[in-house]
Amino acid sequence: MARSAGKSKTTIGVDLGGTKVLTGIVDAEGVVRASQRLSSAVGDFDAAVEEIVETVSACRAASPDASPVALGIGVAGQVERDTGVVRFAPNLGWRDVPLGSRLGERLGIPVFVTNDVRAATWGEWTHGAGTGTRDLVVLFVGTGIGGGVVVAGRLLEGATNAAGELGHQTLVAGGRTCRCGNPGCFEAYVGGWAIAERATEAVREDPAGGRLLVELAGSASAVTAATVMSAAGQGDAFAVRLVDDTVEYLASALVGIVNGFNPARLVLGGGVIEHNPSFVERVRPIVHQRALSAATRRLEIVRARLAGNAGIVGAAAVALHGVEADV
Amino acid sequence: MARSAGKSKTTIGVDLGGTKVLTGIVDAEGVVRASQRLSSAVGDFDAAVEEIVETVSACRAASPDASPVALGIGVAGQVERDTGVVRFAPNLGWRDVPLGSRLGERLGIPVFVTNDVRAATWGEWTHGAGTGTRDLVVLFVGTGIGGGVVVAGRLLEGATNAAGELGHQTLVAGGRTCRCGNPGCFEAYVGGWAIAERATEAVREDPAGGRLLVELAGSASAVTAATVMSAAGQGDAFAVRLVDDTVEYLASALVGIVNGFNPARLVLGGGVIEHNPSFVERVRPIVHQRALSAATRRLEIVRARLAGNAGIVGAAAVALHGVEADV
Repeated sequence: MARSAGKSKTTIGVDLGGTKVLTGIVDAEGVVRASQRLSSAVGDFDAAVEEIVETVSACRAASPDASPVALGIGVAGQVERDTGVVRFAPNLGWRDVPLGSRLGERLGIPVFVTNDVRAATWGEWTHGAGTGTRDLVVLFVGTGIGGGVVVAGRLLEGATNAAGELGHQTLVAGGRTCRCGNPGCFEAYVGGWAIAERATEAVREDPAGGRLLVELAGSASAVTAATVMSAAGQGDAFAVRLVDDTVEYLASALVGIVNGFNPARLVLGGGVIEHNPSFVERVRPIVHQRALSAATRRLEIVRARLAGNAGIVGAAAVALHGVEADV
Repeated sequence: MARSAGKSKTTIGVDLGGTKVLTGIVDAEGVVRASQRLSSAVGDFDAAVEEIVETVSACRAASPDASPVALGIGVAGQVERDTGVVRFAPNLGWRDVPLGSRLGERLGIPVFVTNDVRAATWGEWTHGAGTGTRDLVVLFVGTGIGGGVVVAGRLLEGATNAAGELGHQTLVAGGRTCRCGNPGCFEAYVGGWAIAERATEAVREDPAGGRLLVELAGSASAVTAATVMSAAGQGDAFAVRLVDDTVEYLASALVGIVNGFNPARLVLGGGVIEHNPSFVERVRPIVHQRALSAATRRLEIVRARLAGNAGIVGAAAVALHGVEADV
C-alpha cells in the first residue's frame, strides 16, 4: 500500500460544538492541509457520528496525498479520555455516549476523545502562541470562559479530568449569579453573555446614558457584547465605561491566575479577545503591577494565534501524541 | 563507622520563620524522633546559621541512635531550589544568601532548601492528611494564607518556583487592599490579619455592637482574630456575624480553587483553622453545592493533621526525597 506522499505524518482533528462540526487534516507541524465545516445544530448521537464521518471523507478527498494515522476530537463537555466516552455534553444533549469506539469502528483508525477547551489549549501550546514553554495558561474568553493549564510540560487534568475551569473561579464573592449557579464567577463578569447582561442592566438603570446601545441593538434586552464594543468604538461614554469595567475584571482575575499557577506565558484567546485585541495590551501592565513579583518575573501575556483553528489543530496534535505514546 | 541503629533512615527537618527556628530529626515514616525550638527574632544570616547548627546538635544529642543522612529546610521566602540560595525573605530581612551551601559546609550532609509553605505541604502530603492522593491542594490559613498544590503526583512549582500563592487570588475584585498591594485578595478577607482589620473597622462603625470585642481586647485597634473567635464563642451576635462572613469568604475562595485545580482532596490547616475546626465542616457543604459537579465528584475536604510539625516533617521528607533522587 502506498504511504503518505507528504513528508509529515498527518492526523485528523475534529472540533465538535453544539452548532458545528469542524474537521481538518493536520500535519505534524500543525499545518491544516484540508478542512470541512458543517454549521447546523448537531443532531442525535448516531446522526452526529455520520456527520463527522462525512466531514472526514470530504477532507480525505480534498487532500488525497495525506494518510491520516489517527483522529482526535474535542467535545464541548465532560469526557473520559481512557474510554472515549462522553459523559455529559449539555450543548449536544448527550449523556454517556461511546463516541471514541463508535468513530473508531466507522473510520478504522485510533480515535482520541478530549474536551474542546483542552484540545484548543493543546493547539495553542503545540503550534500557536504557547510553543516553547512548559508552564502555560491558555484562557479562552468567549460567550463562556474556559481555560487550559500546562504545568511542567504536562496538561493539568485534575482528579476527575475537570481541572482548568478558570471561568468559574470566584472573582466577586457574593456577586452576580453565574450560569453554573455559583455567585461571583469570573465568567459572570467577563464572559460574552455576562457583558451583555451587565449592559442590559445598566441600560435599564440609565436609559438616557444607554441610548446608543438601545439604538444599535433595537432594545435593551437585545444588547450583546458586540453592541457594547461597537458603541465603545464610536466613543460612547456609557459603553466605554462598560468596557473599562470589563478590562478591570479581566485583569483582576488574571492576577489571581498568575499568582496561583505562576505560568511563564499567559495566552488570551476566544471571541471577546479576538474582537478586542487591545484588551491584551491593557491588562498586561495591570497584571505586572498587581501580581506578586516572584510570579511575574518571567511572565509574558500574549494573544492566541490559531483563532478558530485551535480546536482542530489541537485535537489533531492530541491524536498524534496518542499514537506516538502507544508505540 | 556505625550505621543508624534505628530501622528507618532519618533526615533533619528545619522550619525557619521570622521569630523561630524549629528543628527535628524525622524518620522515613514521618515520626519526629527529637525536636528543638528556638523562639526569638532570627538574627542576621551568620547568626541564624549558628542557631540552626545549635538546634541540630541538640537534636542529635537527644536522639543519638539516629544518623540523619541529609537536612531539609523550609524558609519563609523565595528560594532557589537548585542552588539553595534564599533570594528574598522579608520576615528575615535576607536577600540572596547562600543558605544551602553554608549549612552544608557546617554540617557535612546534603542540604535541600525549600519554601516553608511548600515544605508544610510536603509534610501533609507524605505523612499527614494528604497521604494516598496524587491531586491535592493544601491551604494554610494563618496570619497570612499560603498553599501548596500537588498535581498528578508532583508538587506544582510554576515557571519561577512561585506557584501556589492561593492567598493572593482575587476574591473581591476592587476590594480590600492586601498586604501584597493587590486589591481584593483572598488573604485580605480571611487571613488572620484581615479578620482583625475587618473587625476593627466594624467596631469603629458600630461601637455599641462591638462592645464585647473592645472589652476583651482593650481597644478597637487591639482586636485580633482570636478576640473575634472568643467573642463569637460566647454567642456575641456582632462577632458571630464577622465569623459567618469569614466562613462565607473562605468557602467562596475554595469554590474557585476546586474548579481551577480539581483536587481529590483539599486539606485545610494553619492557625485560623486549628482554632476553628468547625470551619471545615461549615465550608464543606457550600463548596460541594457551588463548585462544578465534575470537579467535586471525588472531592474530600479535610483538616490538616500535623499542625505545627508539618514544616519539619515536610522539610525532612524533601531531604529524604532529595538524597534518594540523587542516588
